[in-house]
Amino acid sequence: MAKLDGWQMTAPGQPLSCVSREIPALTPDDVLVRVAGCGVCHTDLGFLHDGVRTRHPLPLILGHEISGHVEEAGRRYTSLVGQAVVVPAVLPCGDCELCRSGRPTICRSQIMPGNDRDGGFATRVVLPGRFLCPVPGAGEDADAPLGTAPGLTLRHLAVVADAVSTAYQAVRRSGLERGGLAVVVGLGGVGTFAAQIAADAGAVVVGLDVDQRRLEAASGLHVGLALDSRTVPAKELRARIAEFARASGAPEAGWTVFECSGTAAGQRTAWSLLGYGATLMVVGYTMEASELRLSNLMAFDARAVGNWGCAPDLYPALLTKVLAGTIDVASHATLRPLSEIATVLEDVRAHRAARRVVLIPEKEVR
Amino acid sequence: MAKLDGWQMTAPGQPLSCVSREIPALTPDDVLVRVAGCGVCHTDLGFLHDGVRTRHPLPLILGHEISGHVEEAGRRYTSLVGQAVVVPAVLPCGDCELCRSGRPTICRSQIMPGNDRDGGFATRVVLPGRFLCPVPGAGEDADAPLGTAPGLTLRHLAVVADAVSTAYQAVRRSGLERGGLAVVVGLGGVGTFAAQIAADAGAVVVGLDVDQRRLEAASGLHVGLALDSRTVPAKELRARIAEFARASGAPEAGWTVFECSGTAAGQRTAWSLLGYGATLMVVGYTMEASELRLSNLMAFDARAVGNWGCAPDLYPALLTKVLAGTIDVASHATLRPLSEIATVLEDVRAHRAARRVVLIPEKEVR
Repeated sequence: MAKLDGWQMTAPGQPLSCVSREIPALTPDDVLVRVAGCGVCHTDLGFLHDGVRTRHPLPLILGHEISGHVEEAGRRYTSLVGQAVVVPAVLPCGDCELCRSGRPTICRSQIMPGNDRDGGFATRVVLPGRFLCPVPGAGEDADAPLGTAPGLTLRHLAVVADAVSTAYQAVRRSGLERGGLAVVVGLGGVGTFAAQIAADAGAVVVGLDVDQRRLEAASGLHVGLALDSRTVPAKELRARIAEFARASGAPEAGWTVFECSGTAAGQRTAWSLLGYGATLMVVGYTMEASELRLSNLMAFDARAVGNWGCAPDLYPALLTKVLAGTIDVASHATLRPLSEIATVLEDVRAHRAARRVVLIPEKEVR
Repeated sequence: MAKLDGWQMTAPGQPLSCVSREIPALTPDDVLVRVAGCGVCHTDLGFLHDGVRTRHPLPLILGHEISGHVEEAGRRYTSLVGQAVVVPAVLPCGDCELCRSGRPTICRSQIMPGNDRDGGFATRVVLPGRFLCPVPGAGEDADAPLGTAPGLTLRHLAVVADAVSTAYQAVRRSGLERGGLAVVVGLGGVGTFAAQIAADAGAVVVGLDVDQRRLEAASGLHVGLALDSRTVPAKELRARIAEFARASGAPEAGWTVFECSGTAAGQRTAWSLLGYGATLMVVGYTMEASELRLSNLMAFDARAVGNWGCAPDLYPALLTKVLAGTIDVASHATLRPLSEIATVLEDVRAHRAARRVVLIPEKEVR
């Protein structure tokens, strides 16, 4: 019987342990994916360190940001064998009332790898085949150049499974319009892409962060104004953004704020930027609560919209933009060997990783 | 020169004072409305006691929930003279970019009587004529029965100007569907109507309040389950609502919660009811902040939507429902003489008023 090697979480706060599992016979609905890369997300750290519970009991192999090749398939998906795919981080059932009414991201039978079942910090992963997103033009070699974006490989596309697609759905769902003002709070693993996607949608983009390196690199994300939200006081922040909006011809009402930092401080900053007709997209996650005046939503006729994952049907159009280099993924992802997962998780937790990290199974690292 | 008598706010915390004002010559865009009734709203108490600032400097005649007759009109609105009208609490300009793009409630040139200029706690009020909503079938007598709803008069329709219409827009904007679950937090001046309107939209309605009288009267609002949010613990509240939803055939995801209490406690209760795909409509207002876990919106793919006023184009359809008695306004409004405004404001502040109070100019009280 075939095996997979992976890194499993056994208990909160404990180091991941390397484990070898037998791969069971595939159901007609499942496929076996050979992992090309699996991105490290703050959600993984949430499970490990912040008390967020995995839906499947521990032990569990974490990792939900996966690209790879379909190696074997159950009866329904044999046509996928050999295909390079991006695995949507949220795999809905496709059949329930919620799925059929266009709300797949809240499907109660959804499978999120590394949460509902073993995930992608492994050599292989078993997944439902239904909503995997084929990568056009990708062959067998996970390190071959892809599309026309410099340096892009199938391994980098792991990041599209969650960070890029979550940002993409958030921008789509926000109703951000051409010429509108987008403020991205937190230019990290998700914000990096939210800024680029907002710019691609024709918005004028402001980026806020507390990290000097990120602020300096912000112009590469099409951010027109980058401000340090730790040193600029909230009131001045708002005034400077308003001034920038005016100078850029963006409307003074109806700002769209993307909270991508997943920190309480970032959320408070984002909330303080709510004005008339504003939309706050809550993209990042933290367990921490904040003191907020909820009535501001009423007074400003504004809204706060949560965003969980990305509907599978949005992936193909997004992938086209990534392959064309319209959204630059390769420059914002670092490939590291899966065996270094412990160090990588510590680096990400300590904010030492300047870019999204993709772990790749060791034997295949080049 | 004609005069109007009204009650003006001179300073926070001070009693209103009776004042007589000369009515200036009307501009081509304005009309003079003889007040039939003006409802008392918590917003008025916010101005008086809670530090909310009026946009127009004090002194100012308060009151923004007005019905009446057009007595005189500027050149553009002469056809309205003699017409009975409901005055939308938020009167947009109709010409700006926001108005033209379908966002009139955030029009930056909007006029809210009793906030941007003198309001309806008066015998007469000068207003822009553009968006006044004519009352079909109403004659000169403000006390004549209207439509087919028992006990309904033009005076009661003051409540439609804000309390009923705000609830109406909130329900429309929420996307509440037939068969869906609506939870109304606070069965007071606005929640009373939110419950009825949600029921009229085909929803299964739960009502929460802390007042025993209101909970007992809730079945008259088509509330199927009424719970005391002060005595039932948050977790049990949620469980009982879920049980009721199941028994009523409502979906378990996608609840719509209407926060109408305008209290921090009500907002925390409403927030605690957020689940998968939920929509929280923030309809009530309080200056008080609350400790909230904003990330719940992300984890539940949920949203919180503020609602300021009601777009003028929604009033005619709403008025039709009120005149037909589909939404019962007369039973939920009490007429009181304008001269008793001081007592009424104290009653409302102390939660002694069981129903929405409409103040009517004294000489016309019957």
